[in-house]
Amino acid sequence: MKLIRFGAIGNEKPGVQLENGDWLDVSGFGQDYDEQFFGGDGIRRLKGWLDKNVGSCSKVDDSMRLGAPLCRPSKIICIGLNYAKHAQEAGMEIPKEPVLFFKATTAIVGPNDDVVIPKGSIKTDWEVELAIVIGKKASYVSESEAMDHVAGYVLHNDYSEREYQIERSGQWVKGKSCDTFAPIGPFIATPDEIKDPHNLDLWLKVNGETLQNSNTSDFVFDIPTSISYISQFMTLLPGDVISTGTPFGVGLGFDPPRYLKPGDVVELGIDGLGSSKQVAKAYS
Amino acid sequence: MKLIRFGAIGNEKPGVQLENGDWLDVSGFGQDYDEQFFGGDGIRRLKGWLDKNVGSCSKVDDSMRLGAPLCRPSKIICIGLNYAKHAQEAGMEIPKEPVLFFKATTAIVGPNDDVVIPKGSIKTDWEVELAIVIGKKASYVSESEAMDHVAGYVLHNDYSEREYQIERSGQWVKGKSCDTFAPIGPFIATPDEIKDPHNLDLWLKVNGETLQNSNTSDFVFDIPTSISYISQFMTLLPGDVISTGTPFGVGLGFDPPRYLKPGDVVELGIDGLGSSKQVAKAYS
Repeated sequence: MKLIRFGAIGNEKPGVQLENGDWLDVSGFGQDYDEQFFGGDGIRRLKGWLDKNVGSCSKVDDSMRLGAPLCRPSKIICIGLNYAKHAQEAGMEIPKEPVLFFKATTAIVGPNDDVVIPKGSIKTDWEVELAIVIGKKASYVSESEAMDHVAGYVLHNDYSEREYQIERSGQWVKGKSCDTFAPIGPFIATPDEIKDPHNLDLWLKVNGETLQNSNTSDFVFDIPTSISYISQFMTLLPGDVISTGTPFGVGLGFDPPRYLKPGDVVELGIDGLGSSKQVAKAYS
Repeated sequence: MKLIRFGAIGNEKPGVQLENGDWLDVSGFGQDYDEQFFGGDGIRRLKGWLDKNVGSCSKVDDSMRLGAPLCRPSKIICIGLNYAKHAQEAGMEIPKEPVLFFKATTAIVGPNDDVVIPKGSIKTDWEVELAIVIGKKASYVSESEAMDHVAGYVLHNDYSEREYQIERSGQWVKGKSCDTFAPIGPFIATPDEIKDPHNLDLWLKVNGETLQNSNTSDFVFDIPTSISYISQFMTLLPGDVISTGTPFGVGLGFDPPRYLKPGDVVELGIDGLGSSKQVAKAYS
């Protein structure tokens, strides 16, 4: 199943994307995609409901805005330097254990919303990432149990302001949390839709030029390792998002570095998870 | 006004603490202390409601468990090294601009709940802090406007696992986010209750021995500076918590360092914001 949310900002409704690409309004199911939904076996229940009610769900016009395909999670946990080549371009060693940082949930926007360059910022950068949505509370889970805690997979652009992240007195969160810095979507794909999350091509283009192009087989730490690891330090709640890191090709890695200017068009995608597109816009 | 929440974990109800120390159940007001409450002028509305309904509110027994006096916020933002003497004991320079890090909201517990030493952990440390609760959305606010965004003040113990924070591959969030690492309360005091938040004594004892004892006049960055600064990097939502840093006297600063063992009793307090008490417990 592919979960979407659609409608105006702040008034999104839950929907699904069918095999043929059509979008259906499933607000009749009576629950949005939040902690209660994911934690309360919502995907299985929605599937059962949809089998019976698909005929009465109205179709959503494909010109409709998509929101992020989940309600605000309790947290977004990101893994840093999780592709060997990206660690090299950032001038950092491959970490011995996962590097974790948070991104404010206030940064979440729809997959095709504008990305706003923060006021006075000149170092806004892109990071295509595979994100995992947690389906079941996770605390001290083993690697062998970890995949049972996955509700689905989703495309994420982990926008990063490199001056704020690196040059402004420690801790990366400062450069990761600006409004619009977390476009998520177009849809959450449930695990049955993705044959092997450790073998997915992912790519990102700026103004049509391919700058990131890799495969999740290059992960330093795979998904069960990452989930198990994070759960040793904090409790993951249903609906929480883990973003698994970005491959080679971010703006910071170029010589000289390349950053976004107003009007730049960023497009990205992952095998089986669709694509998204953001236009960079100056803060106003 | 002093806002409390009381009852069993996960089933807390909103209340208030009266001048004489009595606790009243105000669940009849119909709203818990969440983003909608703080953002929707809830404090003023609750005050008006209470003036009319105080006689019909039932008293809460003082043996009742207190929860954190707010529902899960969108984020907890902490300021690092914000007292000059604490930066020195941590062997770090006084920062030129505020150091920010996040703490998972899943770490929040009531003020007198046990603090659980994480599995295998040997470096669990304490940090008494003055925390601010945001009352109005804040994005790019100036220092002169910042105090209008404060809903109240509250006592917070920013528990920290120093090995996780410092020795486990970068980014402090890993040592700040364990379950029970954010006891908040006993109550949120609205601004009218606190004459000068920049002149409050704060203290912390372990097993009766005073280890932290300072005053918020030692802040490197004062409250309006901190709120304005954070709001340049992310949007603060009503109900969000900013924890303003800890003074000299954490376990890490001793030679040799001192960390919590099961059975240790941690007590802390701030002028006008009451006190809290946590007993350290092994993970089980």
